[in-house]
Amino acid sequence: MKMTEGVEWTAHACALLAALPPGIGLPANALAEFHALAPAYMAKHMQALARGGVVESVRGAGGGYRLARPATDISLWDIVEAIEGAEPAFRCSEIRQQGPCVTPNGDFRKPCEIHSAFGKAEMAWRAHLKSVSLADIATEVTRKSSPQKRAAVTVWLQEKLA
Amino acid sequence: MKMTEGVEWTAHACALLAALPPGIGLPANALAEFHALAPAYMAKHMQALARGGVVESVRGAGGGYRLARPATDISLWDIVEAIEGAEPAFRCSEIRQQGPCVTPNGDFRKPCEIHSAFGKAEMAWRAHLKSVSLADIATEVTRKSSPQKRAAVTVWLQEKLA
Repeated sequence: MKMTEGVEWTAHACALLAALPPGIGLPANALAEFHALAPAYMAKHMQALARGGVVESVRGAGGGYRLARPATDISLWDIVEAIEGAEPAFRCSEIRQQGPCVTPNGDFRKPCEIHSAFGKAEMAWRAHLKSVSLADIATEVTRKSSPQKRAAVTVWLQEKLA
Repeated sequence: MKMTEGVEWTAHACALLAALPPGIGLPANALAEFHALAPAYMAKHMQALARGGVVESVRGAGGGYRLARPATDISLWDIVEAIEGAEPAFRCSEIRQQGPCVTPNGDFRKPCEIHSAFGKAEMAWRAHLKSVSLADIATEVTRKSSPQKRAAVTVWLQEKLA
């Protein structure tokens, strides 16, 4: 069970967008270039993020994608939901309702113990991802960057935003 | 991101095995029949469980698969690990080490913030699955079964174990 590359790619792209001045965006091409990723796939993943309401496109100078909300209001879960969808990882096809020992008076209104346990595990996973905002990540990334790294990013951004 | 049907199928199969008298097993065919599942796929999934050390095969009368340990010592995580493997769901390809702004003095020994956050979420998910044993599930399933359901299962088992 694996998430697609799109989660990694867009999480890093959004961390970069979170560090830009308010209202400023970057095109998908530039977001791909920043991590040397395939532009066509990055464009597809950013479109999914836009459909999920995490980013929005801006036209004109300084255009491209920008965060649709303040970075404090966007969590890692929002990114996962936009890329992977909101379906739980556990696949339940209600097999308890099939087979030779199913009785006519069976009560299947509540999920079974197995389904419930996987549901609680899923909620614990999501709760952690919801607790981490893009602002948290951008702050930590910036704090841990060397002065050389920060200078390189500044020069690159000035070129892209010119 | 979805787990395979094998997790649902084998979790229910193991809950049934957990309710059998100690040492007694059931063939994969019978485990498939109990929930009206495709026998060939069930056989494949039970082989994965055996390779993962969750069940073991027993020859002869009362043979088939039985739990390899007491049901109190087998968790839902053990089943997921046997079927899906132990790789985390978040795919990290270290894209932070690529691109025009990577500096020669970059320190990549520790995982980045994004990787760490997904790692903690994964651990929260696994911790919950590890906290639920097959014994917990079998106890609850039995407690909630109607007398008719329990009687149907007893008759079916007597036939299979004869």
